[in-house]
Amino acid sequence: MTPFASLDALRSAFATLPAGDDAAAGAVADRQMQLTKPPGSLGRLETLAAWLGRWQGRDMPRLDKVSVLVFAGNHGVTARGVSAFPASVTAQMVANFAAGGAAINQLSNLINADLVVTDLDLDVPTADFTEGPAMREAEFLAAVNTGAAAVAEGTDLVCLGEMGIGNTTTAAALAAAVFGGDGEHWAGRGTGVDDDGLKRKRDAIDAGLDRHAGILADPLLVAQALGGRELAAMLGAALAARLRRVPVLLDGFVSTAAVAPLAKLADGGLDHAVIAHASAEAGHRRLAEALGKTPLIDLHMRLGEGSGAAVAVPILRAAVACHSGMATFAEAGVDEKD
Amino acid sequence: MTPFASLDALRSAFATLPAGDDAAAGAVADRQMQLTKPPGSLGRLETLAAWLGRWQGRDMPRLDKVSVLVFAGNHGVTARGVSAFPASVTAQMVANFAAGGAAINQLSNLINADLVVTDLDLDVPTADFTEGPAMREAEFLAAVNTGAAAVAEGTDLVCLGEMGIGNTTTAAALAAAVFGGDGEHWAGRGTGVDDDGLKRKRDAIDAGLDRHAGILADPLLVAQALGGRELAAMLGAALAARLRRVPVLLDGFVSTAAVAPLAKLADGGLDHAVIAHASAEAGHRRLAEALGKTPLIDLHMRLGEGSGAAVAVPILRAAVACHSGMATFAEAGVDEKD
Repeated sequence: MTPFASLDALRSAFATLPAGDDAAAGAVADRQMQLTKPPGSLGRLETLAAWLGRWQGRDMPRLDKVSVLVFAGNHGVTARGVSAFPASVTAQMVANFAAGGAAINQLSNLINADLVVTDLDLDVPTADFTEGPAMREAEFLAAVNTGAAAVAEGTDLVCLGEMGIGNTTTAAALAAAVFGGDGEHWAGRGTGVDDDGLKRKRDAIDAGLDRHAGILADPLLVAQALGGRELAAMLGAALAARLRRVPVLLDGFVSTAAVAPLAKLADGGLDHAVIAHASAEAGHRRLAEALGKTPLIDLHMRLGEGSGAAVAVPILRAAVACHSGMATFAEAGVDEKD
Repeated sequence: MTPFASLDALRSAFATLPAGDDAAAGAVADRQMQLTKPPGSLGRLETLAAWLGRWQGRDMPRLDKVSVLVFAGNHGVTARGVSAFPASVTAQMVANFAAGGAAINQLSNLINADLVVTDLDLDVPTADFTEGPAMREAEFLAAVNTGAAAVAEGTDLVCLGEMGIGNTTTAAALAAAVFGGDGEHWAGRGTGVDDDGLKRKRDAIDAGLDRHAGILADPLLVAQALGGRELAAMLGAALAARLRRVPVLLDGFVSTAAVAPLAKLADGGLDHAVIAHASAEAGHRRLAEALGKTPLIDLHMRLGEGSGAAVAVPILRAAVACHSGMATFAEAGVDEKD
């Protein structure tokens, strides 16, 4: 995919997003009605099969090649005491990913997915967004392009995850800027801040919203000024996935906030994405509602790393397995409804 | 396992259920605190790991040998027009299971589980419970013993599922008898009855409760009078699993109702069981609440066959994979909380 050389090039891409394949989705739905089960009795497995068909452009969707993309970044706003963990942990966890010791390593192995971890200039944290834009335009575009390049042609599903101490503050600021509301509305306890830490988090978000009040109506400028490199990379990956007909599974709060600008920049801009897990992080439910999406599972997880997405992948595989493997009423000689 | 020769023998077993292994559960919880993640951030995956450890009696629980037990039975109460499908479908679906064409076949393959389908005298439906007890004592005990015998020693997890046209009526009657309430409170649309069918269902349940008013305080007599053979088999399987230290994953409404007597007959009698899926069938949420259990997933499924349980198995495997595979903070050299 040609890198986006400017914000304008990026805006053009958003303006011309490809639609899903109605014919494939319709064929999936038709077949579901003939399978040996009461119509609708597989619930979301049925609509998920049609969703996968729509975005893969296949009557018989598949999930052979699943990739888990984890992006890592550091955040200047951590100087304001917004996290329970020191910023050094971002790089340490990236080393843990490389060594195979993190949750996402176990989960990616379990679902036979390709785990790709990309760290984005961890030595150069973004600027503290309460003092100025988190990134300059070139930095933002570089991160978007890194994310876009990580989506390989021929992938059946991309799971988006992240690691970045401080990034629930960034995500909350981004959500507030895109959907309205303040720090109190959007900030949660992240990795586990105490009451004082939560107050510092809310204050930092409010200060960021004040500082950047002039650009809040522009989701891309918001992503640059209040976001982070790993969030920009996830936005780029979600965009590239749409252009390449790859369905996307969003992990939790940070990944959902990161790609929210897509929904603001284009009608149905996130129709190719499903939220995997309803994070225990306070703002995620609100964000999911604002996007009109219902997460697949709710296991009170709040780890990030793509862990919630990886846990949900087998549900999509269940949808595909039933869709492609079940007999029809006619094939099985089973009587239909009275 | 020696078959239960009488209701009294069965009652004795309920009175002497083994407790879980607190030491193993504690060891799991301790290890969880040392793994490279904020404490508690894996949510239910952490408590599920401890639950599996407790009932398997292992510090490092495993899910290598998973069995999906599906029991099938026919119900005299179908004569009252309570189902959208003809009773002939039970046997036809059992044939579909044997041929590999049903949802549970695809799902069992997907999770690499051993699927065992047991049909219980399909040619001899239970009696219509509005006219008399569904089963005689010997029939009931035979079904319980069949279920108990299906739980193999050394199994790591048992998923309980069922097939039986008419059995959401039976399950609702059983739930009403055990927890109180009437047909209106507990009956749902099952495989898809219309308003008239739903009314017939409610009426049948209320008639059954009236007919058997004298034995409603005795959960075993209730299971015999208002239940069905496949429900009795699931009760026997859940009991055998407890005696053999095998954790149980309940599928949906019918399987949960079938084993509910265990909770009434012994304090903590269902502590070794987790509800996999919150069925779209109306009564299931109420039943889960009455049992103090929160289902793992809610995908609007209402198929039975053990399908909801099979879809949830990978969540338990995710819990086990994180627990056994993740590095500790010390091993990975990751800084802990500030």
